[in-house]
Amino acid sequence: MGDVGRVPVGIIGASGYGGVQLVRLLIDHPGVELVYLGGESSAGKAFGELYPHLNHRVDLIIEPIDLDQIAARCQVVFLSLPNGLACQMAPALLEKGCKVLDLSADYRFSNLETYENWYGKTRSDQAIAETAVYGLPELYRDRIAEAQLVGCPGCYPTASLLALSPLLKQGLIVPETAVIDAKSGTSGGGRQAKTNLLLAEADNSFAAYGVARHRHTPEIEQVCSDLAGHEVLVQFTPHLIPMVRGILSTVYATLRDPGLVREDLLTIYMAFYRSSPWVKILPSGVYPQTKWATGTNLCYIGVEVDPRTDRIIVMSAIDNLMKGQAGQAIQCLNLMMGWNETLGLPQLSFYP
Amino acid sequence: MGDVGRVPVGIIGASGYGGVQLVRLLIDHPGVELVYLGGESSAGKAFGELYPHLNHRVDLIIEPIDLDQIAARCQVVFLSLPNGLACQMAPALLEKGCKVLDLSADYRFSNLETYENWYGKTRSDQAIAETAVYGLPELYRDRIAEAQLVGCPGCYPTASLLALSPLLKQGLIVPETAVIDAKSGTSGGGRQAKTNLLLAEADNSFAAYGVARHRHTPEIEQVCSDLAGHEVLVQFTPHLIPMVRGILSTVYATLRDPGLVREDLLTIYMAFYRSSPWVKILPSGVYPQTKWATGTNLCYIGVEVDPRTDRIIVMSAIDNLMKGQAGQAIQCLNLMMGWNETLGLPQLSFYP
Amino acid sequence: MGDVGRVPVGIIGASGYGGVQLVRLLIDHPGVELVYLGGESSAGKAFGELYPHLNHRVDLIIEPIDLDQIAARCQVVFLSLPNGLACQMAPALLEKGCKVLDLSADYRFSNLETYENWYGKTRSDQAIAETAVYGLPELYRDRIAEAQLVGCPGCYPTASLLALSPLLKQGLIVPETAVIDAKSGTSGGGRQAKTNLLLAEADNSFAAYGVARHRHTPEIEQVCSDLAGHEVLVQFTPHLIPMVRGILSTVYATLRDPGLVREDLLTIYMAFYRSSPWVKILPSGVYPQTKWATGTNLCYIGVEVDPRTDRIIVMSAIDNLMKGQAGQAIQCLNLMMGWNETLGLPQLSFYP
Amino acid sequence: MGDVGRVPVGIIGASGYGGVQLVRLLIDHPGVELVYLGGESSAGKAFGELYPHLNHRVDLIIEPIDLDQIAARCQVVFLSLPNGLACQMAPALLEKGCKVLDLSADYRFSNLETYENWYGKTRSDQAIAETAVYGLPELYRDRIAEAQLVGCPGCYPTASLLALSPLLKQGLIVPETAVIDAKSGTSGGGRQAKTNLLLAEADNSFAAYGVARHRHTPEIEQVCSDLAGHEVLVQFTPHLIPMVRGILSTVYATLRDPGLVREDLLTIYMAFYRSSPWVKILPSGVYPQTKWATGTNLCYIGVEVDPRTDRIIVMSAIDNLMKGQAGQAIQCLNLMMGWNETLGLPQLSFYP
Repeated sequence: MGDVGRVPVGIIGASGYGGVQLVRLLIDHPGVELVYLGGESSAGKAFGELYPHLNHRVDLIIEPIDLDQIAARCQVVFLSLPNGLACQMAPALLEKGCKVLDLSADYRFSNLETYENWYGKTRSDQAIAETAVYGLPELYRDRIAEAQLVGCPGCYPTASLLALSPLLKQGLIVPETAVIDAKSGTSGGGRQAKTNLLLAEADNSFAAYGVARHRHTPEIEQVCSDLAGHEVLVQFTPHLIPMVRGILSTVYATLRDPGLVREDLLTIYMAFYRSSPWVKILPSGVYPQTKWATGTNLCYIGVEVDPRTDRIIVMSAIDNLMKGQAGQAIQCLNLMMGWNETLGLPQLSFYP
Repeated sequence: MGDVGRVPVGIIGASGYGGVQLVRLLIDHPGVELVYLGGESSAGKAFGELYPHLNHRVDLIIEPIDLDQIAARCQVVFLSLPNGLACQMAPALLEKGCKVLDLSADYRFSNLETYENWYGKTRSDQAIAETAVYGLPELYRDRIAEAQLVGCPGCYPTASLLALSPLLKQGLIVPETAVIDAKSGTSGGGRQAKTNLLLAEADNSFAAYGVARHRHTPEIEQVCSDLAGHEVLVQFTPHLIPMVRGILSTVYATLRDPGLVREDLLTIYMAFYRSSPWVKILPSGVYPQTKWATGTNLCYIGVEVDPRTDRIIVMSAIDNLMKGQAGQAIQCLNLMMGWNETLGLPQLSFYP
Repeated sequence: MGDVGRVPVGIIGASGYGGVQLVRLLIDHPGVELVYLGGESSAGKAFGELYPHLNHRVDLIIEPIDLDQIAARCQVVFLSLPNGLACQMAPALLEKGCKVLDLSADYRFSNLETYENWYGKTRSDQAIAETAVYGLPELYRDRIAEAQLVGCPGCYPTASLLALSPLLKQGLIVPETAVIDAKSGTSGGGRQAKTNLLLAEADNSFAAYGVARHRHTPEIEQVCSDLAGHEVLVQFTPHLIPMVRGILSTVYATLRDPGLVREDLLTIYMAFYRSSPWVKILPSGVYPQTKWATGTNLCYIGVEVDPRTDRIIVMSAIDNLMKGQAGQAIQCLNLMMGWNETLGLPQLSFYP
Repeated sequence: MGDVGRVPVGIIGASGYGGVQLVRLLIDHPGVELVYLGGESSAGKAFGELYPHLNHRVDLIIEPIDLDQIAARCQVVFLSLPNGLACQMAPALLEKGCKVLDLSADYRFSNLETYENWYGKTRSDQAIAETAVYGLPELYRDRIAEAQLVGCPGCYPTASLLALSPLLKQGLIVPETAVIDAKSGTSGGGRQAKTNLLLAEADNSFAAYGVARHRHTPEIEQVCSDLAGHEVLVQFTPHLIPMVRGILSTVYATLRDPGLVREDLLTIYMAFYRSSPWVKILPSGVYPQTKWATGTNLCYIGVEVDPRTDRIIVMSAIDNLMKGQAGQAIQCLNLMMGWNETLGLPQLSFYP
């Protein structure tokens, strides 16, 4: 029934991009044994049939979703499902003693009203939602370690919040001046066949979408408000880059103290992330390339100050499917199990 | 010696991307005859050897640069050279009666001090520079029509200024809140073999560059200040998109009057560009794709208002080598010759 | 009811990639007036809503498909539909006097048995199918000029046959040694949302498909056999390139006469295509880039001989949506109407 | 001086793509300690300055090339240099007792005349060259294990030979019918700034190059001849794919025995590669995607038979910088040191 001492884990929703990342990472993770893959439409298929390149290492069959069975076999369950499904499964799994990491938006909000407004679904599980911890380890490391239920952050919020947090926490900027211009590779749209994500449509083109109304906005604002100690609204605009993986978030804000120079801010950022192995502050004058983060759980941050305008410009780069999704979920798992935060996660992007 | 009634034109610097666009457009332009191509390093070569796909239509040889000869043969000369060279050639050509369109930065600034500060070159031709007209027809149509010397705008300034102009002209925004987050395909870097522009480096990656110090900043500010009637500083950040052509400029600014809604602003934009055939204001809720502009001289503009933050977000898309460079130069030529502004310029992008 | 003297034309199936190419080309074609766009799922929508970048030039509404109406309004009808539909519509349109150009596979085969075997559909219109002319003007120019019904070639067959025809016609190769290794951009898959055509799947990957069983095989063989004067089987393998447009066909065959050198063959190719304005034979040692053909109706051909193996290697490059689809259909239209073959078709790719 | 028991290794030519792959892989390799990086033009620079994304793990400075010093500090030396340099350094290193793995073409040929003919350089080290083993472990595993000098294969030969070897070894095909149509991402061209490898040039285009004269031809032929037991000439054509990494080789050959079906051949391939952990034979009807191999040392092989033409079509996919270069060199190192062939090499591509 598995390696002695390894934690048995399962994934519900294994066939999408979140799922395939989790599978790839978990089969090489020294602390866990992957014992269950679940899905609806793909139930009965060998995972290696869906992803032939993993066939030589994964011999699991995708099974139907039976929560009793799953809880009996798994100590930890990852939910990688469309929004609105996790909140129908997590309560039962938690009750049976599983630890649950949800990659959807269902458990990201402490106030379910925000979720209901932005996601257009009603919820009646406020009590459970309140026990969920927002899975951004760089801010909530200790609470994640204690959590039974973690709501893993969205990809854009991860990149944006890692860029903004030191500024808000230290009160260095005028919060309402924050403009987040974010850009993502198209894998963020998932493995669904949408016309606008076809290579023939998306390649060699670039555009914004969801301007002034993207659902990651309230998620960013929730954490910003938490850090600032008062309600903060941000301007958030996502764009689609004609490439597969990666998010670059370019964040603008007006400094409260115009005397601060780049080196001051780099020092502040390095101090803030001193205990965060997955955040790398780049040397003065170096700006992050998304490619540097590809395939890793890293977030690279570069900082610039414009003395002409008294603005700070912070750029953060992540792999949207790693630190922005599956990698971060495993980072949270590591914390929940009391393991080293870096266990089983890639640190080195190949290049080019 | 050529078609009767066609204006003889020449291009100095024909081998780069600016040059090859000009050649392609001018050989099909009904008003001109392309009689001269000049270059230093490629002198003596057939143009069709450099660009075999144009060989069946262009039989010109690239000639050495002899200004006397050029002036004798050409009524109009395009200069498509690195910064700092046009200002050494334009005076002689102008004196001999040629009309000159410069695609470099040399004649974009009314105050040469700005040029000297940002481009690190000294200039002693303030008198001639003052006669140059900034070649953005949507703003300076009448002056271009009268000009003998036109300094064609940079690619980023073109996209950014077309997005910002109606707002500044009408006093609708707080100018110092303007943030311009711009993204360009890599052809903007020209046909020089730079390591960072290799496909192996640039593909599937995304990054900012020149943050808070890109040379297009003062060019944008010069026109913004002109429109606003007082000095305006902007925040301008360029990024490199892993694709060949296209610029998307996402412009943020705080509205003076929070009561304005999207439809109000679309009306204002449509009125502002009523006589501008190359600017298309998109319907409410539609945002521009750079691909729509590819290969054409068009600029597509989409407008959004965020009632939560009282900001306007304007997105403008152009082809950086067309409206952002060679196409706009020909649009200026059309005005200088008294022709219809659209003559000889493509209006329909292919898709996909 | 339209420009005097312009031929009224319609398109059934206007919303896909074939349709949008036809629309773009026909609205600028000096000989025709585009009066009708038809579709099922998109009926009632403005064409400019589907393709906002064409909105400023096309104000047609997509209409339901009513063959009587269409025939009453159109002299020429393009059918741009999935396989199996054209053969249900063409007979009625022909009977009412329309000229019909079909972009599907329905009218490409003189022997419907071949169609039935490879396409898995039964057909009962052999009589009409026999009146159809295969729309490859470089081979069947005269017959197309007389045709009322043209079956436009597939994209791969177009590239492959233009590469092979001079060799087969002159008996220069051993036909059964012909290997056609073809590569296409993903727009060849159409505007349908298929998972494997997503940018996230197809970008930065390359693979073959349909090996030894692609439906374009019998189409290539039909023409090869016609040229050779006896039945010819070819090896045809298509691949998907991570890019939007373009086909490169690399064709290998053993020369009957090992004494032939590259220059001999270039002479033969140039003679064969002397009257074909859309085929360009490249100079000795130059091989075609698909980019040179992008957006044009051109086919670029490069020829190499390997004296070590006595093989000829011919490379042909086309834009799969132009010479490989909509452009070629319009080239056929030009012939059918007695116009110049090049009328209304782009000759110059932009570059880069 | 390093971890007890780890083998000290160095890299001469660390700054190119081969070098950066080696660095990334070797710093995580459990059997070695990377103690030296050498280069000419980049000497004195921190490696982490060239590749900022590796800065957090690599603190080595690139040093000048002093062979005495290198030999004193390193037990194994990788040479990742342009052709013609390794043969000037390897002899001294070998004499001082180092094991040497050369990634250039210098030691790939047992007969230096072939090298001299195809590479245009004269050589006088035939004696040493004869001691070199061709570093394709799937064919020469035992000899590599005994070698002091390994000439690592080119990227195209690796993919092509793994596809062809079982056929030639078993005498299943007519050797002179072999056509190898190979396609590579542009990283194969290295990190040199060549115009044709710019993203603006290479993206969205596809072309062949080096037709009938590419230098990898004699390398492929040398091994094919070795396997067949007599001289074999092959037709080899490389193409450039608009993507970063990956080679797909499509190999055609006529079967001697037309009765063989796909399943027979799959069985033969699986038997041939039974002891080769890095070659994966795909299930019947599945063809390799280069993306499946990206970042790994794997070679995926798919086999098809065309009963109409009696040809076999074999497709092999590798990552040109891994199995095609640095990964394979480390696989050879593992064999030379008596370690498991898979030690320290990635087995799982991320996807997408």
